[in-house]
Amino acid sequence: MKTMLNTWTWRYLEKLFPLWKFLKKYDGNTAVCDVVAGITVGLTLIPQCIAYASLAGLDPQYGLYSSLCGGIIYAVFGTIPELNIAPTALLSLLTYQYTHNVTFGNVKAAVMLTFFAGIFELFSGILHLGFLVDFVSLPVVSAFTSAGAITIATSQVKNLFGLKFTAESFVDVWKQFFIHIGEVKLWDTLLGFVCITILLLMRKLKDYGVPPIKTTSPEKQAATYKKCIWFVSVGRNAMVVISCAVLAFIFKYHDHKPFALTSKVPSGFPNISIPLKPVETINGTNGTSIPQMISELGYGLVVIPFVAILANVGIAKAFARGNVVDASQEMIAVGLCNIFGSFFGSYPVNASFSRAAVSSASGVRTPVSGIYTGIMVIMAFTFLTPYFSYIPKATLAAVIICAVVFMVEITIAKSIWYINKLDLIPFIITFVSCLLIGIELGILIGILVEICKLMYFTARPKILTSKKITGNKTYLKMVLTSSVFFSSAEHIREKIVQYATSTKSNVSIVLVDCTNVISLDYTAGKCFSLIADDLQKKGTSVAFLVSRDRIIKTLENCGNKNFTIFQTEYDFEQNLNGKNEGLHNDIESVTTQM
Amino acid sequence: MKTMLNTWTWRYLEKLFPLWKFLKKYDGNTAVCDVVAGITVGLTLIPQCIAYASLAGLDPQYGLYSSLCGGIIYAVFGTIPELNIAPTALLSLLTYQYTHNVTFGNVKAAVMLTFFAGIFELFSGILHLGFLVDFVSLPVVSAFTSAGAITIATSQVKNLFGLKFTAESFVDVWKQFFIHIGEVKLWDTLLGFVCITILLLMRKLKDYGVPPIKTTSPEKQAATYKKCIWFVSVGRNAMVVISCAVLAFIFKYHDHKPFALTSKVPSGFPNISIPLKPVETINGTNGTSIPQMISELGYGLVVIPFVAILANVGIAKAFARGNVVDASQEMIAVGLCNIFGSFFGSYPVNASFSRAAVSSASGVRTPVSGIYTGIMVIMAFTFLTPYFSYIPKATLAAVIICAVVFMVEITIAKSIWYINKLDLIPFIITFVSCLLIGIELGILIGILVEICKLMYFTARPKILTSKKITGNKTYLKMVLTSSVFFSSAEHIREKIVQYATSTKSNVSIVLVDCTNVISLDYTAGKCFSLIADDLQKKGTSVAFLVSRDRIIKTLENCGNKNFTIFQTEYDFEQNLNGKNEGLHNDIESVTTQM
Repeated sequence: MKTMLNTWTWRYLEKLFPLWKFLKKYDGNTAVCDVVAGITVGLTLIPQCIAYASLAGLDPQYGLYSSLCGGIIYAVFGTIPELNIAPTALLSLLTYQYTHNVTFGNVKAAVMLTFFAGIFELFSGILHLGFLVDFVSLPVVSAFTSAGAITIATSQVKNLFGLKFTAESFVDVWKQFFIHIGEVKLWDTLLGFVCITILLLMRKLKDYGVPPIKTTSPEKQAATYKKCIWFVSVGRNAMVVISCAVLAFIFKYHDHKPFALTSKVPSGFPNISIPLKPVETINGTNGTSIPQMISELGYGLVVIPFVAILANVGIAKAFARGNVVDASQEMIAVGLCNIFGSFFGSYPVNASFSRAAVSSASGVRTPVSGIYTGIMVIMAFTFLTPYFSYIPKATLAAVIICAVVFMVEITIAKSIWYINKLDLIPFIITFVSCLLIGIELGILIGILVEICKLMYFTARPKILTSKKITGNKTYLKMVLTSSVFFSSAEHIREKIVQYATSTKSNVSIVLVDCTNVISLDYTAGKCFSLIADDLQKKGTSVAFLVSRDRIIKTLENCGNKNFTIFQTEYDFEQNLNGKNEGLHNDIESVTTQM
Repeated sequence: MKTMLNTWTWRYLEKLFPLWKFLKKYDGNTAVCDVVAGITVGLTLIPQCIAYASLAGLDPQYGLYSSLCGGIIYAVFGTIPELNIAPTALLSLLTYQYTHNVTFGNVKAAVMLTFFAGIFELFSGILHLGFLVDFVSLPVVSAFTSAGAITIATSQVKNLFGLKFTAESFVDVWKQFFIHIGEVKLWDTLLGFVCITILLLMRKLKDYGVPPIKTTSPEKQAATYKKCIWFVSVGRNAMVVISCAVLAFIFKYHDHKPFALTSKVPSGFPNISIPLKPVETINGTNGTSIPQMISELGYGLVVIPFVAILANVGIAKAFARGNVVDASQEMIAVGLCNIFGSFFGSYPVNASFSRAAVSSASGVRTPVSGIYTGIMVIMAFTFLTPYFSYIPKATLAAVIICAVVFMVEITIAKSIWYINKLDLIPFIITFVSCLLIGIELGILIGILVEICKLMYFTARPKILTSKKITGNKTYLKMVLTSSVFFSSAEHIREKIVQYATSTKSNVSIVLVDCTNVISLDYTAGKCFSLIADDLQKKGTSVAFLVSRDRIIKTLENCGNKNFTIFQTEYDFEQNLNGKNEGLHNDIESVTTQM
């Protein structure tokens, strides 16, 4: 008994702390792989998180603070080695939308949002709510991420051209852009476009060599060469940002300031503080209580964790290598990353597809690599911060634009067109609403459209009808192709009664084949009873073919004497012809679909 | 060509004016039946509509005005002879809730509501939106009507006891009742309870004789006797109301006023007026524009027509005698009744189950009987109005309570328990929310619960698994029991991959039987492709069994080379064993349901 309990406890702990499973097999070789991957991801992450912080309307250091906990906590609780939990473009944009207008300071709001998002994700994991993600279809996800990417790129247009204006929505930004087009700064624009060109070219380099992790091939030199090219490609963000900062430094040294630069970044470790603290009343200014703060954050408290879970489960599945993803454990892991992060001044964090791809290509073995990335981040905010204020804003804009431009999946429309044309409707509606109304409302509208489509299909199931002859009797066989619920019950009743009593069928015996009916609710049960009554009135007798005990019981409990239930078609035909004539002599006419 | 067009036009006109079809076969015998039924319904309707008007917070004459158009317009556009469109308890209650607080007068608000409800119903009919009614399941409808009936009866408690207070909700009324319990008036209470007792007893009488319409039986005398008893039972509302009015008149003649009486009723035909007229600014009081009025009516503009359609389609189906109900035409008819009615000062009207039952038992033949009921109503407001002010309020309360008490269908819970226990959840949630939160919000909550239930079922379809042997090969056959949509795609992928690669199955060939799959959306198509990739990685080959051309095309367009598609299981087995060994040699193990 004790051993059983122990086994159970062990299994539970192993499930909760997947790190244990990884550590059991951890050796030097694995560690080297993880260190390489961790550093490579760090080189992508550090310039990205500074850029994303500005997208979220926060100072650059918050981007670094947000990258601190993700890697380390996920190393303990995460299951997919490739994932790196840190700021992402989409969550940064959403954070901006829900925090830039609050009265108690956007940093405080962002940190609080992180805390609540973490709690929400943690509980969703504990309550196994991951299935909710299933209700977001691929076309909706693609349209949402595409529109999100376009919105993010749009928000960087002003930094790219050195413009200064405030605008919220996609439409607004472009309107403001054309109003201020006369104020475009030459040097910012030039730098921005040069950076974009270099970044895209360096990205292209990658295609010329994916590093062979196990260098057992005889052409070791060629492999090393390829590896270098690949590393240059992966480290492109860091290289471009450093080069531009150096450039700005040189200009400043000669007393020139051609570019708009990032604001000063304080050095050192973030202060540990409690994310849920009311703003106190000081010197006559009114404070804000926690409930007031919560009400100011509004829908953000639901939208941000939902989008985070959606993205995380999606990315986890993409990198699961054919294994089944433990979605609940993933949600718990991301939830804990956010909760811990909120004590270190983090804004909402999440896995990113681009980082996961880099990590995968760098040959990551276990989530422990996140710890190495974490160490790099710590080094960045202890040693590098003085240099951050030389990074031109246009460079950061270029980094963001080049990161999100490949999230735009408009080409998927072609694939949808080939596979299922009807799915273009939710795709287009989601895409357009995300751009015009806002990306959170857009995805909601998309989900609703998909649910309506689904409801329609369940409400209008197909019935296959064929005329059959057994012995000297003719009967109409009507096959229900799916389960019957309240939404389809009346429709099925109408179709069956209409067809069975029409002159087209001209039979007085109907067999309704319910073999495919797995579930039958109260409304449907009552409706089946009404079908029998309706047909009885018209002089047609009806039998139901049911193989599942539960459905038989449901139908029997309706207490209707106007129908009989058979478990096999053979039984039904036997009964029709009198017990002894069991000759199965079917002539099936063309099956009609209703 | 011209004749074809003519035939088509005729058919269309016949569909739009079902009266034409009825008139073609109209003879003296049918007319007599309709007259008898029309008068009988009138005897139920007139006292009912005075009572319901007070429930709607309106003067008694508005109940009569509302009964005028329904019968006559429905006679032209309606298809079900039994239906009588006039005030109902439920719509009266809803009208009260949406109009008693408006700033521009509750009569004007009620009439405007009628007009818009009519427009809404008319367009729902034209656009064939009747299918929306299918999404309201029987448990939700039962809970809604039961809670509605209890709320209505509750609202009459104060009149029954001669109390005076204002309270809105179910909980409120009972709280106020116990606060004012000391002010209970003896005579009102006595009268009220006597009326209830008499009404219930007289209702019971009906069971002793339903009138045989065709008196061909030799026991003509017994039949006539039975008919009289039935008539007394059906006319009980009229008799009780008249007796009580006479009683009050006698008391008044002797200068006693023991009962609270109905207010004075103006005599004569209603004024015809346009329902959409802004309130003008007179003597400094501010007017109200039409958009302002519309915004004051709020959700009532949607809730009232929705409930009206719901009730109407339900009642129409119950009395359709096994015929298919043309729900669209029914909605058009009810819509026109409301639109026309709104010009005559009507508040929202609808069919009532109790009147339909009376009409049916009176042997109605065609909707023309509504015209005879209409004539009775006209006579009532031209000749009878002076006497209406003698009707005691407690008597009207008794009439309402006795009408709605049989709408309470709590016993249905037992039937749900036997047929499908899970359906008790929406029933109880709807019932409790209707009583505690309000009946309109309650039905919405109920519908949402049912939709969630439905979504869950479509998201978690069952897969039947069996191991099969053909020739010397063993394969795993997995049967999908329903169509696959975005919501179930990931679940199916997980289940199939998990089971197929588990040690339990121990096979390397999987056949996924998609014969029951009628529809496959983009997400599901992509997921099928991923199933093949996942299994390929684990060294398992997969084939899909698909019979529908559309599904085959969808799968082919996914462009995945990791799976093959077969149209029959025979083809698959042939392919498995090499072309020539076609021996169908199945050994089926126990089928597992996932």
